[in-house]
Amino acid sequence: MTRGGGRSFGAVEVIAAKRDCHELTRAQIEWVVGAYTRGEVADEQMSALAMAILLNGMDAAETAHWTQAMIDSGEVLDFGDVGRPLVDKHSTGGVGDKITLPLAPLVAACGAAVPQLSGRGLGHTGGTLDKLESIPGWRASLSTAEIRDQLVEVGAVVCATTPTLAPADRRLYALRDVTGTVESIPLIASSIMSKKLAEGTGGLVLDVKVGSGAFMKTLGRAGELADAMTAIGAAHGLPTTALLTDMSRPLGRCVGNALEVAESVEVLRGGGPADVVALTVALAREMLVLAGITDADPAAVLASGAAHDVWERMIAAQGGDPSAPLPVARHVDEITADRTGVFSGADALAVGTAAWRLGAGRARKEDPVQPAAGVRLLVEPGEEVRPGTPLLELHTDTPERIPDARQILGGAALLVTADPPPDRKLVLDIRRPD
Amino acid sequence: MTRGGGRSFGAVEVIAAKRDCHELTRAQIEWVVGAYTRGEVADEQMSALAMAILLNGMDAAETAHWTQAMIDSGEVLDFGDVGRPLVDKHSTGGVGDKITLPLAPLVAACGAAVPQLSGRGLGHTGGTLDKLESIPGWRASLSTAEIRDQLVEVGAVVCATTPTLAPADRRLYALRDVTGTVESIPLIASSIMSKKLAEGTGGLVLDVKVGSGAFMKTLGRAGELADAMTAIGAAHGLPTTALLTDMSRPLGRCVGNALEVAESVEVLRGGGPADVVALTVALAREMLVLAGITDADPAAVLASGAAHDVWERMIAAQGGDPSAPLPVARHVDEITADRTGVFSGADALAVGTAAWRLGAGRARKEDPVQPAAGVRLLVEPGEEVRPGTPLLELHTDTPERIPDARQILGGAALLVTADPPPDRKLVLDIRRPD
Repeated sequence: MTRGGGRSFGAVEVIAAKRDCHELTRAQIEWVVGAYTRGEVADEQMSALAMAILLNGMDAAETAHWTQAMIDSGEVLDFGDVGRPLVDKHSTGGVGDKITLPLAPLVAACGAAVPQLSGRGLGHTGGTLDKLESIPGWRASLSTAEIRDQLVEVGAVVCATTPTLAPADRRLYALRDVTGTVESIPLIASSIMSKKLAEGTGGLVLDVKVGSGAFMKTLGRAGELADAMTAIGAAHGLPTTALLTDMSRPLGRCVGNALEVAESVEVLRGGGPADVVALTVALAREMLVLAGITDADPAAVLASGAAHDVWERMIAAQGGDPSAPLPVARHVDEITADRTGVFSGADALAVGTAAWRLGAGRARKEDPVQPAAGVRLLVEPGEEVRPGTPLLELHTDTPERIPDARQILGGAALLVTADPPPDRKLVLDIRRPD
Repeated sequence: MTRGGGRSFGAVEVIAAKRDCHELTRAQIEWVVGAYTRGEVADEQMSALAMAILLNGMDAAETAHWTQAMIDSGEVLDFGDVGRPLVDKHSTGGVGDKITLPLAPLVAACGAAVPQLSGRGLGHTGGTLDKLESIPGWRASLSTAEIRDQLVEVGAVVCATTPTLAPADRRLYALRDVTGTVESIPLIASSIMSKKLAEGTGGLVLDVKVGSGAFMKTLGRAGELADAMTAIGAAHGLPTTALLTDMSRPLGRCVGNALEVAESVEVLRGGGPADVVALTVALAREMLVLAGITDADPAAVLASGAAHDVWERMIAAQGGDPSAPLPVARHVDEITADRTGVFSGADALAVGTAAWRLGAGRARKEDPVQPAAGVRLLVEPGEEVRPGTPLLELHTDTPERIPDARQILGGAALLVTADPPPDRKLVLDIRRPD
């Protein structure tokens, strides 16, 4: 753990500098982040600074220094000795975004090592760990030695972030969550990048979601976030590619923990929804470019079943039984079409919120999730429907929540129109390193 | 104590509204200030809100609601039964600003009642209570019943604010002090006005200081603060007049607790520096207008000795001995002129800071002050000096601090020039109620 150069500032001095629109110096940033981690800067001081940053911004140099200070607050992992090029992916979070589940084994099957330290879900977007925990026996927490062994033997690890990685970020994120200071692009970018830089990956592909189900609702804001993160990557020597991808509709047909695992296994077996397959392959291609692997075709590897083999070994290595039946909800209800027309798609935010209310997500980080709860779409956009055609299923162990989910999915959330919908563009933009 | 209409908000919702430049509703303000006072909104949430208010502002309606919510957090005094019209003065703080000491007895001698609940000093500006506490036996803390009795019997009270008055302001001010959120005009204005409205005065004259020794360095900022405070007064039905007065130079010749008491007694005896007399009389005239007293001439009352009689009774009523000798510093040093020319005046901030370092002020609110420490100017602006002419005295019980004070008063702090200085304009502007 390295610390700032010894110059000590007053917290008020640093807050006032950003309040008055000055650029914070590297020394000021190192001091305030380090002192906050050590408990010498109080929560009420850091939240005032976070609000000043949110409203007055930080430039690329400040954001890079802020990221470095958060990395320096904890341990930095080094998996340079696993014998394969390391590459990882991070998604900013979407509805039905189970892409990590087929992607990590696929990229490992192509010869790279994927050290994905991941998180849990909050609100309407699911968490990768929550999804994997619906597999009987699977455990999220691994030691650093276990991660290294699994990277050598399997090539892919999806596990919980260790508490020693960027502890300043953990503390700061919890503070921002209760002080209205989440929505700052420099703070979001540095939070994500500090954890990815500390986990020791050699390349990073970012999937920045755009649309109703994403944190960034517009292409402009998503582009700003992508640029901020790729700039941090560049400043820290981490080759970083960002894809801006559509999140106006859910990814795939399934939203919910066990439902998404089942859909991911379909994809790993060569089937599954076209959008999930397409995005998995697109992200895999970018990861393989960063890993310097030019001789593997991820679409062919996926079709061959090799990625599914890695999946089974990856799950088994963390105590999971990949062939065990997944949990099934005690209650399944249907929503049907009320008119004749063409199904134009489901709104991502509505579907994500409905799945959350049915039990798939949590409102507070200490809440449990229902592994079997969620939503399954039964029709593809473009399919013709008539009154009574089933549009989607609601899965839950707590049927008293079904009316709430039905209400969320009413109105314009499930569109049945006269004309077929325009084709969906899944990848909206790509920002590759220079 | 009244509270908001029962609607409960989330703290993040209120913070986000101001962060996103929305006007806060009356219900939101009532809720957040009340919940903060009750401990339901955390310090880190209130400091983020304070920073958002500092950077995005509050309009007159929001500021009036904020003030009301702080008043509602505690007790409101009512001295409507003391048999005289009530009127008070508040100064935003300056160097050598002992005006309350002659002013309160003068206005009482003219027939009004002055219920001045006051504070202590912090930094380079002195506090009225600190000054009065240099008088042997005088005590700052009175019960509400004692304040009422003294208003009836003497007509003037200068005492400590009771802890039951606007407790939200006390807690919020302490928070703003450590979070870089002091410098917000709506928050400064509502802090001052909530205490004055809660003390139950019937009219208020504000002395808004402008210049190096003041919190507001420019006439523009001081005017903004004056307008914000008079608008709050108007919204709450309190007739409020604001004077913007010069604080580029100290008021009078003495800066320091006992030194300022002695100078105030000179004024009450019909002597004293011309600027202190002039400002005392100007403020008294405005207070008497608000009190509806048209038949008293404060200059004549001051010259008559009647105000000095009230002073003696006011001090004695609070346990003080008005004829006891005041404390004298153990060490007195001089600064002399180093050239021939005209003394053009001393910089207010430099003199205030020197007096503070000599022991007259405090850096933290729990620090003690030296009653006898301070600075006495020995020449008037416009007087001719030559090398060796004494310009001012440094008074302290801790002579090790004298070099520090000498350094602060070096350079351009004490101006000796070829030409006499321009005449000082003491009252720069007046804002009277419509």
